[in-house]
Amino acid sequence: MENYSTRAEKVLARIHELAAISEDPDGITRTFGTPAFLRGRALVRGWFEAAGLSTRLDGIGNVRGRLVSPDPRAKTFVMASHIDTVVNAGKFDGPLGVLLGLDLLENLLARQAELPFHLELIAFSDEEGVRFHTTYLGSKVVAGSFDQGLLSKTDAAGISLAQAVETMGGNVAALAADAIPADQWLGYFEAHIEQGPVLWERNIPVALVTAIAGQRRVELTFRGMAGHAGTVPMDMRQDALAGAARFVLAVEQFGRQNKAGLVATVGKLDVRHAASNVIAGETTCSLDLRSADAARLESAYEALFAQAGDIAAGRNLTLHWNPIQHTAPVACDANLNALLARAIADSGYPVVELVSGAGHDAVPVSFVAPATMLFVRCFQGISHNPLENAELTDIAAAIQVSEQFLVSLIRTPESC
Amino acid sequence: MENYSTRAEKVLARIHELAAISEDPDGITRTFGTPAFLRGRALVRGWFEAAGLSTRLDGIGNVRGRLVSPDPRAKTFVMASHIDTVVNAGKFDGPLGVLLGLDLLENLLARQAELPFHLELIAFSDEEGVRFHTTYLGSKVVAGSFDQGLLSKTDAAGISLAQAVETMGGNVAALAADAIPADQWLGYFEAHIEQGPVLWERNIPVALVTAIAGQRRVELTFRGMAGHAGTVPMDMRQDALAGAARFVLAVEQFGRQNKAGLVATVGKLDVRHAASNVIAGETTCSLDLRSADAARLESAYEALFAQAGDIAAGRNLTLHWNPIQHTAPVACDANLNALLARAIADSGYPVVELVSGAGHDAVPVSFVAPATMLFVRCFQGISHNPLENAELTDIAAAIQVSEQFLVSLIRTPESC
Repeated sequence: MENYSTRAEKVLARIHELAAISEDPDGITRTFGTPAFLRGRALVRGWFEAAGLSTRLDGIGNVRGRLVSPDPRAKTFVMASHIDTVVNAGKFDGPLGVLLGLDLLENLLARQAELPFHLELIAFSDEEGVRFHTTYLGSKVVAGSFDQGLLSKTDAAGISLAQAVETMGGNVAALAADAIPADQWLGYFEAHIEQGPVLWERNIPVALVTAIAGQRRVELTFRGMAGHAGTVPMDMRQDALAGAARFVLAVEQFGRQNKAGLVATVGKLDVRHAASNVIAGETTCSLDLRSADAARLESAYEALFAQAGDIAAGRNLTLHWNPIQHTAPVACDANLNALLARAIADSGYPVVELVSGAGHDAVPVSFVAPATMLFVRCFQGISHNPLENAELTDIAAAIQVSEQFLVSLIRTPESC
Repeated sequence: MENYSTRAEKVLARIHELAAISEDPDGITRTFGTPAFLRGRALVRGWFEAAGLSTRLDGIGNVRGRLVSPDPRAKTFVMASHIDTVVNAGKFDGPLGVLLGLDLLENLLARQAELPFHLELIAFSDEEGVRFHTTYLGSKVVAGSFDQGLLSKTDAAGISLAQAVETMGGNVAALAADAIPADQWLGYFEAHIEQGPVLWERNIPVALVTAIAGQRRVELTFRGMAGHAGTVPMDMRQDALAGAARFVLAVEQFGRQNKAGLVATVGKLDVRHAASNVIAGETTCSLDLRSADAARLESAYEALFAQAGDIAAGRNLTLHWNPIQHTAPVACDANLNALLARAIADSGYPVVELVSGAGHDAVPVSFVAPATMLFVRCFQGISHNPLENAELTDIAAAIQVSEQFLVSLIRTPESC
């Protein structure tokens, strides 16, 4: 373990060094294309080059480092994560996967191992989608599923994505050429903090990700009649907040009954023209449903739509149901998962299987290549927050497991 | 009825004329001491003087018109309401009572009736308390219960109440002298729109107010643990919004079970750092409880405090319970109520008894004098809103009833 611990210290030091580069001095913010992002990317690119990787920036701004196989028919295996962040982010969400991957490649290079496949390490330029309200810009380009229509989207300052890409030295005309052709993919591996509390609570360093949940997002508005809290009798009210409250509890109850198969959340709730002495006339809330099981996700969506309608009808409210997102669940590759599970077990850890409730770059990649992910334990499951943390021993375990996985893959590339 | 209808038209014309004076051109806003307030007050004062009332502005800025009795031992009966408004107000809340009173006095003067008591008509300068977050400034001065400590309160611009009073030509040193001494009060009458839907729904023009509800206001905060909506399993959540939603429904259910005796409302609810994909870590909501029955108000307060605690404990949340207002219920005077009930019946209307859920200037007055109120039907119970309306026929009925009441009082002043 001592060797892994030393390597983990180096990974951690790089994570801290990258985290010091931020748009705001008091936090960590590196959204796509900003000066802080460019400085952070330059740092990462420098590390890739110093390691001896053949490195370039692609059209969408990803940093791409490559170890080339001598085999003329070799396909490409990708290890990656992202280096953009949310606003006021933590240090680990994204960078951990990139810098853990860099450590593996540095060690491969040191051993001068001959590769049966090309190995590409990518630092994706935009996964969080904060600036343009998009997600996976970087990985979609590499997976060949980038939608050119997104180039005309504008940020809060009115700058288009196309302008932003050109300003940061990218090339919107070359995006298609930056894709790894579907027949050239061998597979994809991403290490990432769990962003949930399961490993923290169970005190287990890593987990195998079996699937990435699909998601349904809805914005609902209940409308009743505003009124004076002192003068409208209880039986004459059409209280939109009470209707929304009933829905919040219905969502929670539905999620609890479905246990491990589904999570259901109302995170936002706004009372229009709210005042303590006014009965709410209009209340808007969010619904966020996630499941790895497409059929379960659909039936939950339909059931909660029906429940919202029943609540509105029973309270003489109107309901406006506005679906705003629908992404299908993605299953990780069974063969790669089996290889990763064996690496976890061989490293001496229990094999915990988790579904990722958060989205990852593995989602767009999974449509063209076998993909798998390793989750790393993080402090209390907290992410997207300065409190986000992964402990040294857990990072060391993740390095050990990932290296074991990579070594197995090199030995038996037909596992993919 | 024809005579009352003509008089109602005149009252309505004055209400419209006063409503045209506003701080904002698109709505009706005349908060205490503003230029629009002063212009509105000058208009009302002019009407008082033109009617032949002995008129003055008192220290807090009330317009006070007086008909003097020849009886050297005569006490004072006050008819009043207020001429300040909330922001984006309706036309009737306040001005109706003042201008209906003016109509009665104009008709008394025309009949040259000799009064067994002094009759004072007051347009109170501040009932809504918008500017200084106070209430009843005008009527508290007249009732002799003005708290000098309020003079140092400041508005949003940092201007103190004392400065505001001086700027509008008032006199903070003379406020005590503006009170009607407790032993000089005969009684108090105020006509006001209901601000609730009962008369509107039952299509009855006026109601007798038997009491003004006491009020308890609380701000509650539930604190749990923020988390990612996709990654925290349902059974590991401490969802502050779900806790608050449970409380909203508990409050509603409690109010419904208590029917006519109590109203209970959560009108505000804020999720801190709300996002659709974040489990709420902290949610703050309001509680507004009103009842004419002090014991019932107290037991409701205690019961809902206990329920909030149970909800928090059952969900592993913490509860912060912050009481922010407590006003005792006020009963209208039984003798004056009997006189007003007879006036309603004699005018040919059913005698509906209502508890006022909203506060009125009658509250501070009731601590020094017998008080009664007449409610006037308003459109759908809507108030504090440009849609606020009282129909001509209902205003005519209110004039008829109020005049009948006043005539009876003049005939039998010992009724008080």
